[in-house]
Amino acid sequence: MEIFRGRRLWIEKRMIRSPRGTKMERVIIHPNSAVAVLPVEGDRCKLLRQYRVAIDQFIYEVPAGTMEPGENPEETARRELIEETGFAAQTIATRGFIYTTPGFTDEKIFLFEARDLSPSDEYSKDEDEIIEVVDIPSAHLRGMIRDGTIVDAKTICLIHLCLGC
Amino acid sequence: MEIFRGRRLWIEKRMIRSPRGTKMERVIIHPNSAVAVLPVEGDRCKLLRQYRVAIDQFIYEVPAGTMEPGENPEETARRELIEETGFAAQTIATRGFIYTTPGFTDEKIFLFEARDLSPSDEYSKDEDEIIEVVDIPSAHLRGMIRDGTIVDAKTICLIHLCLGC
Repeated sequence: MEIFRGRRLWIEKRMIRSPRGTKMERVIIHPNSAVAVLPVEGDRCKLLRQYRVAIDQFIYEVPAGTMEPGENPEETARRELIEETGFAAQTIATRGFIYTTPGFTDEKIFLFEARDLSPSDEYSKDEDEIIEVVDIPSAHLRGMIRDGTIVDAKTICLIHLCLGC
Repeated sequence: MEIFRGRRLWIEKRMIRSPRGTKMERVIIHPNSAVAVLPVEGDRCKLLRQYRVAIDQFIYEVPAGTMEPGENPEETARRELIEETGFAAQTIATRGFIYTTPGFTDEKIFLFEARDLSPSDEYSKDEDEIIEVVDIPSAHLRGMIRDGTIVDAKTICLIHLCLGC
């Protein structure tokens, strides 16, 4: 049964049968698939300092966004990287995907590492987002995860997968 | 405006004002706070092989669950560890928290590392969950993340924070 359908999410209530045969109600959130991309430049990375309405806070995140109709994940990664940082990547490598929180959503985020960056002509900042691009030495990222400065799950996963730190 | 209120989630639609002053509609999912815990025993860890309705798949995950009224995160971690693995931990250490996917939810998962495990008398398997406990050498976890065997975000974050691998 549909609870809600919006531009970014649709939400359904589903009756399922447990292993014991009990009927259970589950609410499942279906967002569009998304990508996240870690831009790496020598011994530094670019992260965003971004305001998030849901948690009413600024947090550190990698560039990320949802896939538009007709896009494949790599195309979305290239587009979002330009839109959010102003840099285009010559090299984009896949780093797999994650399920963000499969207890209530099927959201899947495809992960990419971007290298060989150069300022993009196509850059036009999305004025509906509050974003600051910050350049951080890769060697600092492990400490920023340990001390709770970086708390965004996709960002931690991507740093782990790209830098193994 | 409330869209839905259930036992595990409430969902609201909120009108917000963008930096440019444009009015925007955002749907925000508010689940209960949750915990996740990595049980470590010598050079091995216990993970779960668990069926998830939302993605219709079995995936590897650390033991996890939502906080009951009156519980603090550590109490939830101890309870879920027993309920899902049958083991109690003498030592529970906090490893911070993550926001799972702050684009549309304020879900926060508190992370713990459990050591000094012993079989628990209180163990009574929750028959509404399809769970198998698997013992995995800690040295294998890095490879399981790299090759896409482990794709659950909180599990990757917790392995990174506990084992630095």
